[in-house]
Amino acid sequence: MYPIITISREFGSGGHTIGKMVSEKLGVPFYDSEIVDQVAKRSGYTKAVINEQGEYTDKLTKWFSVTVPSAMYFENPQDEIFKAQRRVILDCAEQGPCVIVGRCADDILDQEGYNTMNVFIHADMDHRIARVLERYGDTDVDVRKRLERKDRNRKTYYKYYTDREWGKYTNYQLNLDSGYLGIDQCVNIIVDTAKAIDARTREE
Amino acid sequence: MYPIITISREFGSGGHTIGKMVSEKLGVPFYDSEIVDQVAKRSGYTKAVINEQGEYTDKLTKWFSVTVPSAMYFENPQDEIFKAQRRVILDCAEQGPCVIVGRCADDILDQEGYNTMNVFIHADMDHRIARVLERYGDTDVDVRKRLERKDRNRKTYYKYYTDREWGKYTNYQLNLDSGYLGIDQCVNIIVDTAKAIDARTREE
Repeated sequence: MYPIITISREFGSGGHTIGKMVSEKLGVPFYDSEIVDQVAKRSGYTKAVINEQGEYTDKLTKWFSVTVPSAMYFENPQDEIFKAQRRVILDCAEQGPCVIVGRCADDILDQEGYNTMNVFIHADMDHRIARVLERYGDTDVDVRKRLERKDRNRKTYYKYYTDREWGKYTNYQLNLDSGYLGIDQCVNIIVDTAKAIDARTREE
Repeated sequence: MYPIITISREFGSGGHTIGKMVSEKLGVPFYDSEIVDQVAKRSGYTKAVINEQGEYTDKLTKWFSVTVPSAMYFENPQDEIFKAQRRVILDCAEQGPCVIVGRCADDILDQEGYNTMNVFIHADMDHRIARVLERYGDTDVDVRKRLERKDRNRKTYYKYYTDREWGKYTNYQLNLDSGYLGIDQCVNIIVDTAKAIDARTREE
């Protein structure tokens, strides 16, 4: 059986594209924005809010919400969204092998004892800037600063909800530089490895 | 052309074995203890001293050697060995594609603009303890503590001579968990990727 493949990624590193291609080659479901759709249905929050709050933490917002008296809120919206996302991710995993992008899926599934292959995709800044400009077109925003902020907020979010360090090698079975390797070779490595794991589990 | 492949590794993760197998499959030279032989010839230090001082730094020794008046020594032996190792590594790289294990080869070659593929091999503690016991037999030493000390000293050595963080994803194109993937799949990933890079450079 293929493992469940989780993909964490630096912004602009092509992690979404790689995950999509892997799922197509292996013939297993792919979950990225699909998770947002499900969370929207279950939580009542809009997709825009979920996209913003479901993977990114601005440290100041977080600190504010922690330091104000908790009685002021029923629950922090970010915590509510995290819990809804967690339930959706566990439901996806329950269906069998699949590819899940982001949203602390690696830690959530590890905690529940699933057989996961956790992948981290990164690339140097020049490759990521080129990729973002190619995908989203030229903008007035300073792309480098935007990438750095996105990464920082993903890292903070991941640390807050998992107590793990984002990108640290001990958390991943494969950690790939898509800028050097290219998207296709990243896909090949993940697909070949999933097949090797599948073959090994059949032998056992 | 194949890239020069550098392999950094946690102690007991099988990095030496993986490097050796990769070099045989690609038909390129393999440098690990061969570097020690060359350094011994050039520096006059014994292999035992080079093995001990050429990849490991005990922080206290380092601090001591830094805080005593430098006039007391012509040169710190560890610095002398590092410089001799550096020259040997550059000579190896100059011969063409090869596999080099440890000794900050990734940073030394990157600084000089070589086309390297830097690989980091790690594994969870249980896999590493099992591997060390299998290779070196049962000992009175606490294997876990020995592994932790070896890693800590490699990390300190690497940081001191490269100012990079050992194991950090930004320094490596491939970062592989040999405990999960197995030695053979690590070898396959590195060999297939070297071939893909070779094919790409031929097209360009």
